[in-house]
Amino acid sequence: MMKGTKSAKAEIICVGTELLLGQIVNTNAAWLSGQLSLAGVYVYYQTVVGDNPDRLKQVLRTAVSRSDYIFLTGGLGPTQDDITMACTAEVAGVPLQLHQPSKDAIAAYFAKMNRTHITENNWKQALLPETCQPLPNHHGTAPGCIISMKTMKDDCHFVLLPGPPAEMQPMFHDFVLPWLTGQITSRLKHVFVRMAGIGESAAETLLRDLIDQQQNPTLAPYASTGEVIFRITQSLSNTEDEDLIQPLLEEIKKRAGPYIYEIGRRTLPEVVRDLLSAAGQTISFAESCTGGLIAKQLTDYPNASHVFAGGLVAYQNAIKRDVLGVDSGIFERDGAVSEKCAVAMASGCLKLFKSDWAVAVTGIAGPDGGTVEKPVGTVFLAVAGHGHTQTESLKLVGNRERIRTLAALNAYRLIRRVMNESAI
Amino acid sequence: MMKGTKSAKAEIICVGTELLLGQIVNTNAAWLSGQLSLAGVYVYYQTVVGDNPDRLKQVLRTAVSRSDYIFLTGGLGPTQDDITMACTAEVAGVPLQLHQPSKDAIAAYFAKMNRTHITENNWKQALLPETCQPLPNHHGTAPGCIISMKTMKDDCHFVLLPGPPAEMQPMFHDFVLPWLTGQITSRLKHVFVRMAGIGESAAETLLRDLIDQQQNPTLAPYASTGEVIFRITQSLSNTEDEDLIQPLLEEIKKRAGPYIYEIGRRTLPEVVRDLLSAAGQTISFAESCTGGLIAKQLTDYPNASHVFAGGLVAYQNAIKRDVLGVDSGIFERDGAVSEKCAVAMASGCLKLFKSDWAVAVTGIAGPDGGTVEKPVGTVFLAVAGHGHTQTESLKLVGNRERIRTLAALNAYRLIRRVMNESAI
Repeated sequence: MMKGTKSAKAEIICVGTELLLGQIVNTNAAWLSGQLSLAGVYVYYQTVVGDNPDRLKQVLRTAVSRSDYIFLTGGLGPTQDDITMACTAEVAGVPLQLHQPSKDAIAAYFAKMNRTHITENNWKQALLPETCQPLPNHHGTAPGCIISMKTMKDDCHFVLLPGPPAEMQPMFHDFVLPWLTGQITSRLKHVFVRMAGIGESAAETLLRDLIDQQQNPTLAPYASTGEVIFRITQSLSNTEDEDLIQPLLEEIKKRAGPYIYEIGRRTLPEVVRDLLSAAGQTISFAESCTGGLIAKQLTDYPNASHVFAGGLVAYQNAIKRDVLGVDSGIFERDGAVSEKCAVAMASGCLKLFKSDWAVAVTGIAGPDGGTVEKPVGTVFLAVAGHGHTQTESLKLVGNRERIRTLAALNAYRLIRRVMNESAI
Repeated sequence: MMKGTKSAKAEIICVGTELLLGQIVNTNAAWLSGQLSLAGVYVYYQTVVGDNPDRLKQVLRTAVSRSDYIFLTGGLGPTQDDITMACTAEVAGVPLQLHQPSKDAIAAYFAKMNRTHITENNWKQALLPETCQPLPNHHGTAPGCIISMKTMKDDCHFVLLPGPPAEMQPMFHDFVLPWLTGQITSRLKHVFVRMAGIGESAAETLLRDLIDQQQNPTLAPYASTGEVIFRITQSLSNTEDEDLIQPLLEEIKKRAGPYIYEIGRRTLPEVVRDLLSAAGQTISFAESCTGGLIAKQLTDYPNASHVFAGGLVAYQNAIKRDVLGVDSGIFERDGAVSEKCAVAMASGCLKLFKSDWAVAVTGIAGPDGGTVEKPVGTVFLAVAGHGHTQTESLKLVGNRERIRTLAALNAYRLIRRVMNESAI
């Protein structure tokens, strides 16, 4: 019934007590959701449940009542805690039986690992439902499977996958995705619009009527720390469908153009890196309150070495003076957290690293050190290079981590703006 | 009924379509689960549901039927997609009304940010259930709240928290945890044993029989990137209970003493900061492949300024030569990724920052740049100061992020060891 008639409803169930104890983060749910969304399958629920048969079976019955596709990860291994296969088979009403090719594959896997002694519990992993489509595991021992059952309303499919991402992801790509593509015909196309220099609610107010339309394509805010990101999604029924994203994108640009730094997936440090790279220019950083964070963010990505001249973390006034050449008088008259100090740091940074551009940051990240005049969150930025000097003062709110994160984000926003303006 | 009679059953519901699309990983569920587990509250389910009122209310009703405590995150903001407060109030049967102190707090928050124009939708965040315990948000605009309702069986409590971790985590710590501690009488006491310089499986093998006992207290590995952490947990029925943790701790020390850097909650950078502080000494960093990460980690915590002289990110050979005084011959003979270069960098760093200690790191974080002789993951560390010079070479495995994280961790491990040895 799914074929072209209506969208497929899916949910994801991750089985494992370690998830409920918070010992590991559920990256499987995010990864599978992302894959399914790109494939045009709508995920309506993600559930985590522990290694408890009664609770797992109850969660499975609820899933059958509301979803067409139920993806399970975890609990397929050899131990007594691995209950996913038996519980799902019971709910689907299909008995387990030995699946000889899976038993052979387990033996072959151990042979490949040069392990001769295979404990008895490993063969449990070869017990699969009588009527199912087995999914071979080329990166571990536990096979997965697809179980299809008739419900009162419709067909319902269980897709059982192992928990370790290194086993789950290739199994999904190699076997589940081709099967799924044969099942459904709708597709989603996504475009991300990333902004800086505008708050989330202000940006939403600018675009409110476009967000409220909620037709095809849809526009929705996309959560992130400090950054404002919107997602445009078009639902396609076949590859020849008209591009409906471009007109919406043009309208967004018309309204919020100056704030948009990227239409795509690059972060602000990546955009700055690519701008520098295209111009054949280099950058350096003089950081006080951000303490190395700005340099770290540029070097998080490969290919920074061509554009990154170097960075100085100048936490102490003596270092600002001796290494960057900031005049001591500035500390006395204006203080180290001041526009003048930021400008002097940027200027010294240019000379020290012989770079095309320098960015300096000085501020109070807290929790201590604020005054009435300069409270925690006061940050001064300066960008210097190619005859330009541009400064900005920020009043940031939040804890130490948030203030440092926003100071770094704004430093990248400012250098991008100055570079773009100087290129005109 | 919770008081002392049986354990509290909890579940976590995270609201947000962006989670169902796989655009962000659900770190909130893991963080809250970890915190609740430490507080002695058992989490039986985690659910993610989108910004859809019918589905959210259905999930809430299911939760009421099976849990004593229901923690919700996300969907408290000002937009039309933020439906958590209204849906929960409806399920709990409590009408919403304007909560003036929350409205005032929102106005104050905007004033602090120097934003004079507050769009109308922001006031929606001050609509709270008539009978609830409001939870102030000191790091954003949306307040949380606790709603308690009588069910046919028992009391049921909804705890509504904002989605951004920087707002959710302090709200949980400052307001929810004290409230929760008043609700439940069973207590868990935890002690964390943190190790460096030993792999996770090697450490587990050392302690295997102690882990397998699983009595009171329990010993369990505690997941973390690169670091090896064990958690000892004693279940206490009252405050006069005998301390069962100490004997187990002594046994662990006997077996793994040299690897233990902390019995408690401090990270390795914090331990190093406190060592320096106690000795009245300062440190500086010369970073190549870690690109500012080591300086960033020390300055993540307050009170780094007394001990942190400064850091240089020397990504280019010219900077290693001109600013740190590394002899060009070293690049030609040994290469920039070599023990000799690390030693010369540390030595130059000592002089540049006039610090007691200097740590230098040079290596290949990848994904490109490796050779057969020096593959990606090759890292050299040098520590210099007080007449000591100590070096170490590492062969790290993993992606760029992991290699940088482990290089920084090992740099802190090495400086701690050198400082401890020099103090003897």
